[in-house]
Amino acid sequence: MSTWRWLLGTPLKSSEARHEEINETEGLAALSLDALTSVAYGPQAMLLVLATAGAAAIPLLWPITIAIVVLLVLLVLSYSQVIDAYPQGGGAYAVSRANLGPGLSLLAAAALICDYVLTVAVSIAAGVAALTSAFPALLPLTLPIGLALIAIITVLNLRGVGEGARAFLLPTFVFIAGILAVIAVGLVHPAHPGGLQAPAVAVAGAGTQVAEALGLLLILKAFAAGCSALTGVEAIANGVPLFREPRQVRARRTEAALGAFLGAMLLGLALLTIRFHVGPQPDQTVLSQVMAAAVGRGWAYYTVTLATTATLALAANTSFGGLPVLTSVLARDRYLPHLFAMRGDRLTYQYGIGVLALLAALLLVAVDGNTDALIPLFAIGVFTGFTLAQAGLVIHWRRQRPPGWVRRALLNGLGAVATAVATGVFLLTKFTGGAWVVVLAIPLFILLFRAIHRYYVRVAAALSSGAEGPDLPQPATGHSLVVVPVSGISRLTTRALSDALTLGDEVLAVSVQFDAEAGKRLEQAWEDWQVGVRLVTLVTRYSSVVRPLLRFIDAIDRNTHERVVVLVPEVVPRGFWAQVLHNETAAMLVASLRRRSDVVVAITPYHPPWEPKPTPAVAVSGGRRDKGE
Amino acid sequence: MSTWRWLLGTPLKSSEARHEEINETEGLAALSLDALTSVAYGPQAMLLVLATAGAAAIPLLWPITIAIVVLLVLLVLSYSQVIDAYPQGGGAYAVSRANLGPGLSLLAAAALICDYVLTVAVSIAAGVAALTSAFPALLPLTLPIGLALIAIITVLNLRGVGEGARAFLLPTFVFIAGILAVIAVGLVHPAHPGGLQAPAVAVAGAGTQVAEALGLLLILKAFAAGCSALTGVEAIANGVPLFREPRQVRARRTEAALGAFLGAMLLGLALLTIRFHVGPQPDQTVLSQVMAAAVGRGWAYYTVTLATTATLALAANTSFGGLPVLTSVLARDRYLPHLFAMRGDRLTYQYGIGVLALLAALLLVAVDGNTDALIPLFAIGVFTGFTLAQAGLVIHWRRQRPPGWVRRALLNGLGAVATAVATGVFLLTKFTGGAWVVVLAIPLFILLFRAIHRYYVRVAAALSSGAEGPDLPQPATGHSLVVVPVSGISRLTTRALSDALTLGDEVLAVSVQFDAEAGKRLEQAWEDWQVGVRLVTLVTRYSSVVRPLLRFIDAIDRNTHERVVVLVPEVVPRGFWAQVLHNETAAMLVASLRRRSDVVVAITPYHPPWEPKPTPAVAVSGGRRDKGE
Repeated sequence: MSTWRWLLGTPLKSSEARHEEINETEGLAALSLDALTSVAYGPQAMLLVLATAGAAAIPLLWPITIAIVVLLVLLVLSYSQVIDAYPQGGGAYAVSRANLGPGLSLLAAAALICDYVLTVAVSIAAGVAALTSAFPALLPLTLPIGLALIAIITVLNLRGVGEGARAFLLPTFVFIAGILAVIAVGLVHPAHPGGLQAPAVAVAGAGTQVAEALGLLLILKAFAAGCSALTGVEAIANGVPLFREPRQVRARRTEAALGAFLGAMLLGLALLTIRFHVGPQPDQTVLSQVMAAAVGRGWAYYTVTLATTATLALAANTSFGGLPVLTSVLARDRYLPHLFAMRGDRLTYQYGIGVLALLAALLLVAVDGNTDALIPLFAIGVFTGFTLAQAGLVIHWRRQRPPGWVRRALLNGLGAVATAVATGVFLLTKFTGGAWVVVLAIPLFILLFRAIHRYYVRVAAALSSGAEGPDLPQPATGHSLVVVPVSGISRLTTRALSDALTLGDEVLAVSVQFDAEAGKRLEQAWEDWQVGVRLVTLVTRYSSVVRPLLRFIDAIDRNTHERVVVLVPEVVPRGFWAQVLHNETAAMLVASLRRRSDVVVAITPYHPPWEPKPTPAVAVSGGRRDKGE
Repeated sequence: MSTWRWLLGTPLKSSEARHEEINETEGLAALSLDALTSVAYGPQAMLLVLATAGAAAIPLLWPITIAIVVLLVLLVLSYSQVIDAYPQGGGAYAVSRANLGPGLSLLAAAALICDYVLTVAVSIAAGVAALTSAFPALLPLTLPIGLALIAIITVLNLRGVGEGARAFLLPTFVFIAGILAVIAVGLVHPAHPGGLQAPAVAVAGAGTQVAEALGLLLILKAFAAGCSALTGVEAIANGVPLFREPRQVRARRTEAALGAFLGAMLLGLALLTIRFHVGPQPDQTVLSQVMAAAVGRGWAYYTVTLATTATLALAANTSFGGLPVLTSVLARDRYLPHLFAMRGDRLTYQYGIGVLALLAALLLVAVDGNTDALIPLFAIGVFTGFTLAQAGLVIHWRRQRPPGWVRRALLNGLGAVATAVATGVFLLTKFTGGAWVVVLAIPLFILLFRAIHRYYVRVAAALSSGAEGPDLPQPATGHSLVVVPVSGISRLTTRALSDALTLGDEVLAVSVQFDAEAGKRLEQAWEDWQVGVRLVTLVTRYSSVVRPLLRFIDAIDRNTHERVVVLVPEVVPRGFWAQVLHNETAAMLVASLRRRSDVVVAITPYHPPWEPKPTPAVAVSGGRRDKGE
């Protein structure tokens, strides 16, 4: 427990929650990394598809990239309108809930959850790939490095220091400037002599099959793969409340900058890829090859590579800002367990963080740290969210009818149609390649949300006092009986019987024995003790102590004894390890009674005398500062 | 829980425990598989060492095997005397405890635990290797198959059906007869034409380096590796009580048969290995190569291979009979947690079984299912046990002085010295190769045993009533106070207050609020309710509910309130999954109070009304047959 505390830090007061307000540059670093860093895997995903049709198909990269950038412009414009309409943060879930009703909002929530998890997995996998491209010796450690990165990000977020926009500035700046510089140099200079180490295009199949394979399906597949570069475009619109005033203006500017940078990088990298005849390679990312060809494997290459890995890790980190907030909203709307709405000592939604880390780590293990294997799963959730948010906005504009609403509704409508078509393309082209996982996961999430909601509504109805107001408590007027399970005579027995005599009108000690002989001995000792409490001995032929006790308690006549308490004496050491040493019979008995019976279950805890006295709890938890409570 | 029950079966009565009595043949199947099956990995381990010095070193296999067989004969004779001296089962732990004192008996116990775990891991790994040698398509599944085998054996043992000597007879017979037949055919016929698929000796380095490498160290190393074939020779002596009368005679005969079969197989396989020029290969066990060369890859090969895999799995199974009994004895002697001495519903020591399965599975994962990587760890624990048992027997004979005791003591002394020397050789030659793990693990186990023992002795002293007999219970004569933590007003609140009023002289409701506004609202509603119980509202600036409550309870004046009970209302659904949906505040509060405070902790459980009524517990646990309890 103290290790945990050391990792996470001392508890924080609610007033100590971070309220950073950010400007445009910081906004770019804090909210757009997911989108910007996708240049590290998006173009590669396209190239991988095209290369299956041979080297001759590679130049198709150019028109497809242009189509993706057109979609990017449309999305940036659409989301500028989302910023206008939902300055309080227009996540797809919130927009759908307000405009499209609860059903579609759950679809949006499920899609977003898939997307957040995938963003973490893809970003981490791509970050490690960038690293292993530069340092091939690390290749065998791909998966461990990825898992370690997730662990670090998780701990930082559990501590509540995951959102330091200012700390993100340097790597983000180096990354953007570095990639743009690489593109500039690459477009002007000839390929660097030492840069391309291997034959550039080492693709499967020669030009012979190209003719038949260069069909529409191939182009659509490449387009679908490349659209993974557009994920994260929505994040700025979700984060409007984080900006300094004038919020909406700053957010719109940031969105525009994101569009400009991302578009420039995608186009530039596509040109360089074609120019340098780069093809997909197992141990080298496409970005690494392009960089090596443009500037050689010198300090510039290594600097940009490290910045790429760092920004990809930070991109994964932004999901840790998003998903726990989403799950807390879902929990408050009673679609997820209450746990997700509870803040930990560090004021973070620790269960959301934990679940995100776990799912992302499982994904990473499932694909063995390989980015390319995750791409087919990616983008479907995001684009579903895009479509729902845009469609929701169309309805929003139609309801509100502000000046120019028709134009605005048309733009968002266009965005909705385009992203819906893109989603259709993804489903069509990527289904068998892995998209089925998402297609399966989303409805399962929705079913889960609904089942949880039904349960909570039912419990609330059962517990609510009804129209006539809450009943008054009715203490038992008859006899109350306290049953004390004992295994022998010791100081613990004495103490438990004292408590039992204090609480109830009548006390009964019960002992479960595996052989009759031992039972007789205990009964004799009990008689000699002259304790004035009756002892019942149950002899069982099974090995469980709990079952005969439950049976005995169920058999107690509830007419003579209106209320039954079972008081369990238990040795409770303070240390965690010492707890393992104590027979878990007491704990099992308490758990069983709690679940299976309606008696009051009580525990008389006995702390070994050499352990430090139970000090005031606050000191134990390290929260000495909460004087005023 | 019901899946668990389905896997494990319904509870058994103590009288239903198995009491099979076995004869010599069954004894061979039940107790000697560990030793007999070691021909599947022992010769290979030797060959692997010799091959490092080139093909010319391979014929050294013959003299080294002879040395090992001589040691085998000595051990068989020594253990026949153990059977005489300890007809109640002379495990190294029991013999050391009786003759060498508690210190060395813990060394024996620690060594045995390492050995049991390694036996499981090595046998399973070798069994899978036998399988993949015959069916190379299964090679990528090496680790999953191994883990699945461990899982199956674990479940069978948890069910308590792990020890069916009769069921072991067929595979054991096929295995022994098959290997002996293979040896007979191989010695007479020339190598089978289709048998040797690959160039037989594909060892590292050619004959050039042989001269310098063929030193004493190489021979000792090969000897140490080969001694892994002698593990398990002690098992029959441990299991004497299982035999039908005359126990000792039958056990001695079984031990002799074990020695004869094992010796014959080791010598025969060594001859064939040299004759067929077999060398270690990555995807083929040495045994598989020898069999293929002798009889070809026909039905005979596949039959013996499958029997080998089956008997190796059964050999792993015998550890599941040994370790849980050893840990239960250690637990009763207070060197391990009491848990290990508790029998489960199926009368098995389920914690010992679980720990063995877990450790063996971890080992298997750590070496990626590779038998050869485990060999250096193996045998050290066993031979330490051999030495201690033999040394203990020397003292035993000296104390008892039966007729011929000098001769007996000399034989056991010789055994002790030989195995001690062998242990020294293992440490010398295998330390860096993996033996350090065992050298580290054994003292750590001993430290753990001692620490646990100290703790239990201390707790027993604290709980014991002392010389003047147990005190009588003293019910509180002053005021008793029941504190009820509440989060609002509901039927659950009503019920908890009813219980509280039944149990205590005074009742106080306490509510923890995160903002003062909500606290005011609850106080107003409480006042309107006119419930007659005072409500205290604690406003906290932290996110924890538990801490302010603990602080409040600690601050209660114990002079006015002699005994304090905290009664926690809790919604307890029966289903496991529904439990996740309930805010764990109540459970956390109970756990914290139990650990940190000396108040009585009570729970008023509330079962959602649509769930089935808590039925008599016996029906739930499936034990409808325990009428007479």
